[in-house]
Amino acid sequence: MTTPFPFSAIVGQDQMKLAMVLTAIDPGIGGVLVFGDRGTGKSTAVRALASLLPPMTVVRGCPVNSERPEDCPDWANVADTTPEQRPTPVVDLPLGVTEDRVTGALDIERALTQGEKAFEPGLLARANRGYLYIDEVNLLEDHIVDLLLDVAQSGVNAVEREGLSIRHAARFVLVGSGNPEEGELRPQLLDRFGLSVEVTTPGAIDDRIEVIRRRSAFETETRAFLDHWQAEDAKLRDRIVAARTALRDVATTEDILRDCAELSIALGTDGLRGELTLLRAARALAAHDNAAAITRDQLRAIAPLALGHRLRRDPLDEAGSTARVTRAVADVLG
Amino acid sequence: MTTPFPFSAIVGQDQMKLAMVLTAIDPGIGGVLVFGDRGTGKSTAVRALASLLPPMTVVRGCPVNSERPEDCPDWANVADTTPEQRPTPVVDLPLGVTEDRVTGALDIERALTQGEKAFEPGLLARANRGYLYIDEVNLLEDHIVDLLLDVAQSGVNAVEREGLSIRHAARFVLVGSGNPEEGELRPQLLDRFGLSVEVTTPGAIDDRIEVIRRRSAFETETRAFLDHWQAEDAKLRDRIVAARTALRDVATTEDILRDCAELSIALGTDGLRGELTLLRAARALAAHDNAAAITRDQLRAIAPLALGHRLRRDPLDEAGSTARVTRAVADVLG
Amino acid sequence: MTTPFPFSAIVGQDQMKLAMVLTAIDPGIGGVLVFGDRGTGKSTAVRALASLLPPMTVVRGCPVNSERPEDCPDWANVADTTPEQRPTPVVDLPLGVTEDRVTGALDIERALTQGEKAFEPGLLARANRGYLYIDEVNLLEDHIVDLLLDVAQSGVNAVEREGLSIRHAARFVLVGSGNPEEGELRPQLLDRFGLSVEVTTPGAIDDRIEVIRRRSAFETETRAFLDHWQAEDAKLRDRIVAARTALRDVATTEDILRDCAELSIALGTDGLRGELTLLRAARALAAHDNAAAITRDQLRAIAPLALGHRLRRDPLDEAGSTARVTRAVADVLG
Amino acid sequence: MTTPFPFSAIVGQDQMKLAMVLTAIDPGIGGVLVFGDRGTGKSTAVRALASLLPPMTVVRGCPVNSERPEDCPDWANVADTTPEQRPTPVVDLPLGVTEDRVTGALDIERALTQGEKAFEPGLLARANRGYLYIDEVNLLEDHIVDLLLDVAQSGVNAVEREGLSIRHAARFVLVGSGNPEEGELRPQLLDRFGLSVEVTTPGAIDDRIEVIRRRSAFETETRAFLDHWQAEDAKLRDRIVAARTALRDVATTEDILRDCAELSIALGTDGLRGELTLLRAARALAAHDNAAAITRDQLRAIAPLALGHRLRRDPLDEAGSTARVTRAVADVLG
Amino acid sequence: MTTPFPFSAIVGQDQMKLAMVLTAIDPGIGGVLVFGDRGTGKSTAVRALASLLPPMTVVRGCPVNSERPEDCPDWANVADTTPEQRPTPVVDLPLGVTEDRVTGALDIERALTQGEKAFEPGLLARANRGYLYIDEVNLLEDHIVDLLLDVAQSGVNAVEREGLSIRHAARFVLVGSGNPEEGELRPQLLDRFGLSVEVTTPGAIDDRIEVIRRRSAFETETRAFLDHWQAEDAKLRDRIVAARTALRDVATTEDILRDCAELSIALGTDGLRGELTLLRAARALAAHDNAAAITRDQLRAIAPLALGHRLRRDPLDEAGSTARVTRAVADVLG
Amino acid sequence: MTTPFPFSAIVGQDQMKLAMVLTAIDPGIGGVLVFGDRGTGKSTAVRALASLLPPMTVVRGCPVNSERPEDCPDWANVADTTPEQRPTPVVDLPLGVTEDRVTGALDIERALTQGEKAFEPGLLARANRGYLYIDEVNLLEDHIVDLLLDVAQSGVNAVEREGLSIRHAARFVLVGSGNPEEGELRPQLLDRFGLSVEVTTPGAIDDRIEVIRRRSAFETETRAFLDHWQAEDAKLRDRIVAARTALRDVATTEDILRDCAELSIALGTDGLRGELTLLRAARALAAHDNAAAITRDQLRAIAPLALGHRLRRDPLDEAGSTARVTRAVADVLG
Repeated sequence: MTTPFPFSAIVGQDQMKLAMVLTAIDPGIGGVLVFGDRGTGKSTAVRALASLLPPMTVVRGCPVNSERPEDCPDWANVADTTPEQRPTPVVDLPLGVTEDRVTGALDIERALTQGEKAFEPGLLARANRGYLYIDEVNLLEDHIVDLLLDVAQSGVNAVEREGLSIRHAARFVLVGSGNPEEGELRPQLLDRFGLSVEVTTPGAIDDRIEVIRRRSAFETETRAFLDHWQAEDAKLRDRIVAARTALRDVATTEDILRDCAELSIALGTDGLRGELTLLRAARALAAHDNAAAITRDQLRAIAPLALGHRLRRDPLDEAGSTARVTRAVADVLG
Repeated sequence: MTTPFPFSAIVGQDQMKLAMVLTAIDPGIGGVLVFGDRGTGKSTAVRALASLLPPMTVVRGCPVNSERPEDCPDWANVADTTPEQRPTPVVDLPLGVTEDRVTGALDIERALTQGEKAFEPGLLARANRGYLYIDEVNLLEDHIVDLLLDVAQSGVNAVEREGLSIRHAARFVLVGSGNPEEGELRPQLLDRFGLSVEVTTPGAIDDRIEVIRRRSAFETETRAFLDHWQAEDAKLRDRIVAARTALRDVATTEDILRDCAELSIALGTDGLRGELTLLRAARALAAHDNAAAITRDQLRAIAPLALGHRLRRDPLDEAGSTARVTRAVADVLG
Repeated sequence: MTTPFPFSAIVGQDQMKLAMVLTAIDPGIGGVLVFGDRGTGKSTAVRALASLLPPMTVVRGCPVNSERPEDCPDWANVADTTPEQRPTPVVDLPLGVTEDRVTGALDIERALTQGEKAFEPGLLARANRGYLYIDEVNLLEDHIVDLLLDVAQSGVNAVEREGLSIRHAARFVLVGSGNPEEGELRPQLLDRFGLSVEVTTPGAIDDRIEVIRRRSAFETETRAFLDHWQAEDAKLRDRIVAARTALRDVATTEDILRDCAELSIALGTDGLRGELTLLRAARALAAHDNAAAITRDQLRAIAPLALGHRLRRDPLDEAGSTARVTRAVADVLG
Repeated sequence: MTTPFPFSAIVGQDQMKLAMVLTAIDPGIGGVLVFGDRGTGKSTAVRALASLLPPMTVVRGCPVNSERPEDCPDWANVADTTPEQRPTPVVDLPLGVTEDRVTGALDIERALTQGEKAFEPGLLARANRGYLYIDEVNLLEDHIVDLLLDVAQSGVNAVEREGLSIRHAARFVLVGSGNPEEGELRPQLLDRFGLSVEVTTPGAIDDRIEVIRRRSAFETETRAFLDHWQAEDAKLRDRIVAARTALRDVATTEDILRDCAELSIALGTDGLRGELTLLRAARALAAHDNAAAITRDQLRAIAPLALGHRLRRDPLDEAGSTARVTRAVADVLG
Repeated sequence: MTTPFPFSAIVGQDQMKLAMVLTAIDPGIGGVLVFGDRGTGKSTAVRALASLLPPMTVVRGCPVNSERPEDCPDWANVADTTPEQRPTPVVDLPLGVTEDRVTGALDIERALTQGEKAFEPGLLARANRGYLYIDEVNLLEDHIVDLLLDVAQSGVNAVEREGLSIRHAARFVLVGSGNPEEGELRPQLLDRFGLSVEVTTPGAIDDRIEVIRRRSAFETETRAFLDHWQAEDAKLRDRIVAARTALRDVATTEDILRDCAELSIALGTDGLRGELTLLRAARALAAHDNAAAITRDQLRAIAPLALGHRLRRDPLDEAGSTARVTRAVADVLG
Repeated sequence: MTTPFPFSAIVGQDQMKLAMVLTAIDPGIGGVLVFGDRGTGKSTAVRALASLLPPMTVVRGCPVNSERPEDCPDWANVADTTPEQRPTPVVDLPLGVTEDRVTGALDIERALTQGEKAFEPGLLARANRGYLYIDEVNLLEDHIVDLLLDVAQSGVNAVEREGLSIRHAARFVLVGSGNPEEGELRPQLLDRFGLSVEVTTPGAIDDRIEVIRRRSAFETETRAFLDHWQAEDAKLRDRIVAARTALRDVATTEDILRDCAELSIALGTDGLRGELTLLRAARALAAHDNAAAITRDQLRAIAPLALGHRLRRDPLDEAGSTARVTRAVADVLG
């Protein structure tokens, strides 16, 4: 009900904003993990981005936000198939959420009153085609996190419990925030987020004043403030929509493939998810930049986001992960 | 049923009383965390403050104390919409409270007898527009505390459990007490309380005699005692009510914005919640002081309350947090 | 069904007996914590005291032992309001008691058979106006102890569970026994008991013979034994009843207030519960002694009971707590 | 169904047999704790003793083995009050027993089918007037052991759970076995057993052959074996029955009282349970010995059983507990 | 449905096979504990033995395999009492088995549909008169193991739970396998198995080839393989059946009794179970050997199986338990 | 719904692919454990293999995929017994799966609505005749893993819970992935997987480019990509189908038996599972190679897969397990 703070009005935090915009262009990039200080507006940013995206066309009443009636799950009674518009959903994982509410579960009411075993969709159904935000991903129980990462990667929510055996589409962008001070994240968990960014409290006095000023204006002179910034948001929306279409036509040269592989080898990343994500996110950035083909510029911009959280710890190299990526980018891409 | 001890009759403890009065003027400041010795009347103070506030006008039977029928949640059968008066609620978190009673849960009675899945509101519903008091916040289970802080900040109680998916307004001031001797509080938890104050057993003999004398008078000469102090309470109520109205007209200069940012930078607080709360609480204090604009006086008075619990531990600086805030205030504000 | 051992026939243990008698005069003093050796008759003493007190007048069938029909809780169907006599209840906390039986809970029988959500009162209801005895308070689960201390202090049992929201009077004297050898008690827990006493196995041979002799006589020559000691108990009952009435007329001078505060400051007790309890228990003792005003004699007698368990541990002072209180009493009161 | 091994045919283990016979004469002595090696026939002995005792007269169908209809609990539908004979029960605590089966609990069948809340008696009801045997008392969960000790001492089973509030007689002799190699027993637990004895694997070759021979005869020449030993058992039964009657007439001199107290003081036992049990068990032994009054002979015989498990550990005295008791007996009784 | 591998075709492992055959002759010997390497056919051997034993005659439909209708438990509706033949049961304890399935429990179906509290027999009922096999007894939860050992020894399954109070015959041979590398077994647990044997991977190349060859033949030339080995199995069956009858006529001399006791004393075994089992298993071996009386030959053969797992650890004697038994046998029996 | 990546298009990882193909020829070999880096396509490979296998003929509606009506379990209402075609199932163990969904459990719906106790098949039923894939087998709870290994080995799912006693065929190939960095696997668990292989991130730059290129082609030029590789998959399918038939005719010489035993002895593997699996997998490879008899070539190829995970750790031999197997193969087979 309350108008969210406009995405464009967020001061600084460019890496975080870039990562989120790329997932809006190609959700297949995988989730975004945001590290860093408390109180730097991570949650605000997700909500702001989702609210500037164009509304989705969905079958009326479809519990998983599907566009076509045949994609609505068979356990859904979708009689009226005329389309309706819905905003891009941002689903928050409330603290203390139980697994059955995440995946959906047996509908107890219908079981008790009508004696039939029906499925009650959960948060994953509601998040389909949108965002799922987890604050402090390291405080969530491991099995819930694993479950979310599994579903985010496969795009399918498979529920096997209480005699139910249900599958439905659950394609969403997972955005997690984490504070490295509160215990390191498991490498497997890191690896399965597409991109990672770090946010910090702005250090420059003018940035901090600007933050307070905008926040104060948002609260006290709301109307004028929104008029200005929603226009900025509209420009960004147009650019995202255009990039979604352009995405499939961005060319990928053999050289770019080789660059991706060489960067990953140079950094010694485990497995192949690093280079596959690097390529995919670079393509989204090229589309956003309105480029006909991926160039080394996009690789340079994306490498820290796609590879930074996949480095093995190297005891002989004390440089931080960003510095190591930057150095490798310079070595490999010149 | 029993008359609470009057707020004005509390001896000393000025910081605690100030913090509570400010949240009565602007509940958006966030909760108050009260550190310190046992037996210093923390619980008494909350109850006393709430009881001096003017009664709230609410829709008759509305489970979340809403003023307008359309703000009563749709799961509430509110047929008769004539208003009623209710005192400002102070909800105590009883020890051993379960999450379902905090957030509300499936109404088992109706589920069993009428076969329908209805929502039974919990303590958060009852606390709307009032106070929620947690004694010894460090003894409460972490997940309950996190849940309360989440709701306190968003003003919305989102229940996702047992097949229920409910949202209702839950705007309340969280007042927590904690004893640092029993284990330090997590920094995240500290950061999410708006203000913090420390209370100690009064050291001056005359103060202590005064406490016993008033308490003894309250118990043995109740009528005369209340006549005197309820008049004091009434003056305070008028001042709070006036300040609530004045709040929106308090001006904020660019210099004050800069002061807020500089103070936070000088103290090295994480994130931006410190300066945002500082500004907001200073505005409430200005309204309480009947000032047209926030001045450095208000910043000076509020800084220890808004920033003291947000300092990073500095191994080179052995001064306590209050001393460090005072020194920074002197440096920045002169 | 079995006649309890008479209170007056208990050999020695004067401090314990004094503390219990004072709570019979003014239950508002708070509970009594009895430290010490196993097998020293702690449980016997509580039961013996309760059995010598005059019967209570209560509304017939009232589940909380109320004297007036309007004080019976509204969930109680109390049709016949003629009074009945009941002995002062001593409620034992059986090992393995569950929280729901302590506080009361949903009446499952009525829920299942009549489909209505009724309250089934628990031990706290039954203990109203009487005693609640916990053997080895340190073996009870913390959350149960905390709950009991909370209720004992507020006099109200607030039940928030299973969709119930019930409040009823629960004014009782909590008597706990603890053995310091089995792990120290938390300071918070100590502080919330009004008085504390220590009991030890009698060391004098004649005392020990007297104990065996009386016990043997109680079992083998029961009738004669009871005839003698029940007469003693009757005298004590009359004195307690008289003191209850005299209580409100005992005068408290400014000097006495100052003495209380000075004693607490001299001993460095945390918070103000120490001096408040000291004053209250001294007043009860004055009433028991048939004195018109509290004198230093009563303070001297009560100080070890009211302050001994509230001392901070002082590493430079190796004297035990009793010695420290005695020394402070000598310093302050002369 | 199978005939138990005769009590009299047990080879050696005189202390254990004496302790058990005394509890058959006066169950008020409290339970017996048997320490020692595996495979020394502890369980066999309890069963054998119970089976030689005369049958009990009980109200037909009374769930707690009461002799008079008015002692059958009111929740028992005992229509036909003609007496019946039952053997003295020996109730075994099966491993994995739950608290509800020990104390009794809500009768689920009746709750579900007839919608009424009835009590289903547990093992404590069945053990009334008999024996309750716990093998390896240190393997049982603490809360079950505490519960059993509580009930054994008070003779009353108080059930406060699931909305039930039931009390019934539960007077039984608790026999526990424990192996000190598997972790020491808590002093509180030790103190609450009336008597303790130690059993060891017989060391003499002839004793061991005799054990195998009798066992082999019991299995292969059952009839002849039982004919011989059941006659021995009958003599013991007559002696126990006679002692039960004689018990109330055994005289206790002042000197004996003093001896009890002096012995306990000399040994430094905590509390008074030691001397009280010593006196009581000595009286039972006097009755068994057909003596008119307790003499020092009985004290000498009983002291190790009643006091041995109540000694404080004395770091300067390396003698075992039996040696220490023997020495004290010699010092005090000459 | 699949034919088990024939017992006689098992290569080597003579001790294990002997122990199992003895328990088939006299189940009262108690269970067998098989130590040793993985993949040495422990489970195969139990199944093979049971399948060569003659079928049991049981009352049709009797849930505990009883031979006479009056031995079928009263909770069983056994209308048709004509006998039927059943193979000797081998009941496997599936991983994750719950206590209620082991002991039997309330029949939920009948409770829900017919409102009556009936007993649903568990694995112990099914195992009566047969074998119960536990793979990796050290991985099973302690309370399940204890329960099984208890029942195996007493021959009675006593169920005290959910308001049920049931007893039925449960005489079975417990066969457990354990791997000492995965944590030592508790001495109590060891002591309560009648016999123990150790199995190892065969070291001789020809034995190993023979194992693969027979296994390969069993799978590829099944018919011919079974024809040969089932004839061997038939001979063993006849010998077991004859030994069962001969058992009661085997004589036991005084010298043999003395030998048993002397062996146990020489080895310092705790308790008397060692010598009692030694005697009993030697008698079964004598019957198997068709001997008129137990001789020292049988004692020599059985001593390692009956005593090896009952030795106290002797820090001065580094020989393994088998060597120590062998030495004692040589010393005592010559 | 989505076409899986073709098995033949997987770059490298020859050992993993070989192991999987062998289990497709003879599922009796037992499962495959795949060790190694994240992101190396383990899950992709299983799914790809299953999708190239020929469809299975099953009874319509049979819950365990049986080919003949009489093999469908009796709790299944299979009225229409005409056959249907189903793809080879690949069942994924979702994170957080409960034991009851794995094994099947009481059908709650039918229990509640029809009052009958019916079985609801679980994942093991669905996996019959197919694959069961467990990602990160070391993260799964031990008791679930043990259960799966048990069933995989016996081919039978035995359910003993909630009053159900059900057995049905559950023959499947278990494929587990594990990362040795996250804690070593228990030796018992290792031993019970038939084969093991290690996968690593490809090190050669050209391999890595090839991976990205094929993946990119699969996503952007799907049709052409599939046309090419599905033809390759078809050839592999034909070879597997032919090998299944040829399997029973592959000859095994005495020399090969001796080689198997000697290899195992040389490597000191525990138990006999190593050599039995070696023989069986070598036979499958011979059938795949269209050889008339097993030769040393097949033993050489299979030895690392069948024996590598069964070596005892040898402190004097620092070579890795693969090197040790290779050396033993060279020693034994020349």
